[in-house]
Amino acid sequence: MEAPTRDSLRFPASQAQHIDPYIPSPSTPPPSNPISKPHVTLTFATSLDSQLSLAPGVQTALSGPESKAMTHYLRSWHDAILIGAGTAIADNPSLNCRIGGVGGYGGEGLERQPRPVIIDPKGRWNVTAESKCVQLAASGRGKGPWIVTFRGAFGREDKRRKLLESVGGAVLEITIVLATTNSPMPWSMILSVLAGNGIKSVMIEGGGTVINGLISPANIREVDSVIITIAPVWLGKGGVQVCPDEREQEGNKIPIGRLKDVKWLPLGDDVVLCGRPNGS
Amino acid sequence: MEAPTRDSLRFPASQAQHIDPYIPSPSTPPPSNPISKPHVTLTFATSLDSQLSLAPGVQTALSGPESKAMTHYLRSWHDAILIGAGTAIADNPSLNCRIGGVGGYGGEGLERQPRPVIIDPKGRWNVTAESKCVQLAASGRGKGPWIVTFRGAFGREDKRRKLLESVGGAVLEITIVLATTNSPMPWSMILSVLAGNGIKSVMIEGGGTVINGLISPANIREVDSVIITIAPVWLGKGGVQVCPDEREQEGNKIPIGRLKDVKWLPLGDDVVLCGRPNGS
Repeated sequence: MEAPTRDSLRFPASQAQHIDPYIPSPSTPPPSNPISKPHVTLTFATSLDSQLSLAPGVQTALSGPESKAMTHYLRSWHDAILIGAGTAIADNPSLNCRIGGVGGYGGEGLERQPRPVIIDPKGRWNVTAESKCVQLAASGRGKGPWIVTFRGAFGREDKRRKLLESVGGAVLEITIVLATTNSPMPWSMILSVLAGNGIKSVMIEGGGTVINGLISPANIREVDSVIITIAPVWLGKGGVQVCPDEREQEGNKIPIGRLKDVKWLPLGDDVVLCGRPNGS
Repeated sequence: MEAPTRDSLRFPASQAQHIDPYIPSPSTPPPSNPISKPHVTLTFATSLDSQLSLAPGVQTALSGPESKAMTHYLRSWHDAILIGAGTAIADNPSLNCRIGGVGGYGGEGLERQPRPVIIDPKGRWNVTAESKCVQLAASGRGKGPWIVTFRGAFGREDKRRKLLESVGGAVLEITIVLATTNSPMPWSMILSVLAGNGIKSVMIEGGGTVINGLISPANIREVDSVIITIAPVWLGKGGVQVCPDEREQEGNKIPIGRLKDVKWLPLGDDVVLCGRPNGS
């Protein structure tokens, strides 16, 4: 292995040992084919008031440098990382992995680089050659992004489709009878499409619509692990909040569910919560 | 010291050592008189979605037994514990301290029992001889509660006033020109009244109105320490949320403020965050 490149990150093994049981890491061999659904790790950072950002469309720095290193470490052990179109539009994210030793950061080819996946039912994301994740794929430091969308949202001749294909990406289309592009995409179908394309593990990173959808009573069973960073700051009303739809049982409101196998890991000024949804 | 009574609690010294720097404990001598404001420790437990309970008026068990022991340990080192009338009405709380060794729980008299303080500007709390905190005061296991209210909310002949006085409690009245009983009570005045009555430290426990008021941009400077327990559960929309009013600077929304001197302490399945508001 070459020396890591200048902008590579390092996540200490002393911290990683606490995280590894929750992700598909070297200690857990990948499942044998065929699988119907990848391992789903849901990960994000919030404020004390459970907010992802100060306002919709605004990127807010919440967690410290240690958490950033952890995020990239997590990416290195997942086949794909997934975000919603709103986050792709707001943040212009890199969506690659910069841990020292992975492909493009001291390692060969694209080894342990995750596949960026953008959920974009309406075809809203105006991806161009200047989008960071496209530039990284073009320069050999990331895989080409996949867009998961409803059939028809991207035309056959759409320039974006050709752009993605030119850097090793693709548009993956889902057809649902009676669905419109205003319907949410069913998580079971998104995960099934990913599994069918060889993705055995996916790290889901945001934003608010994606996270709140996944932790809602209807979908939480799709989640295998959660890794949440909490920063010691209040953002105040008006931000993008993580708060699932309410759950009822026999007419009474009940909690969405307590996590099990809980581990709290202080990390700089933040804390990282690892756990598994009950029943997953 | 007698053996602790059957229902007394214990908080291990190994955990307490992390909490002590944030509270007025044996290692920090009490301030000399006169003081204009007591040391304010704000403490509460939330879900991951920053909620205190599933719905207004509903008591929701969030944190585990270790957190309960910590709460009583904290109470043992504060001169007073303070809640809002809404919480007094909803929860019928005991508001005493059950750590082994304090007065009534293996210790003498009312030594290290905190003074219960209920903020009740409108005189809504219908305290009776059956209220838990009155019963405990009557039986020598807690101090008589103080109600802080606007002058006029309790009449001179109000039975509640006499009941409180019969167990060593009192009604403390605040007069503000032009205030009505619908105005919020200014925190600076509440704290000043407590200081004037010999309270050098107060632990503020809830509920939502009290907490959100104190962490708002206008009041956060009154808070010296925060000790927040976070439980690994989502409650879902519709609960009582901790989320301060937004803060603006030169027309831009900014965070309410990041805590400093941050310490995260895993405690059972929960985590405890200790910190100090910046600028306090």
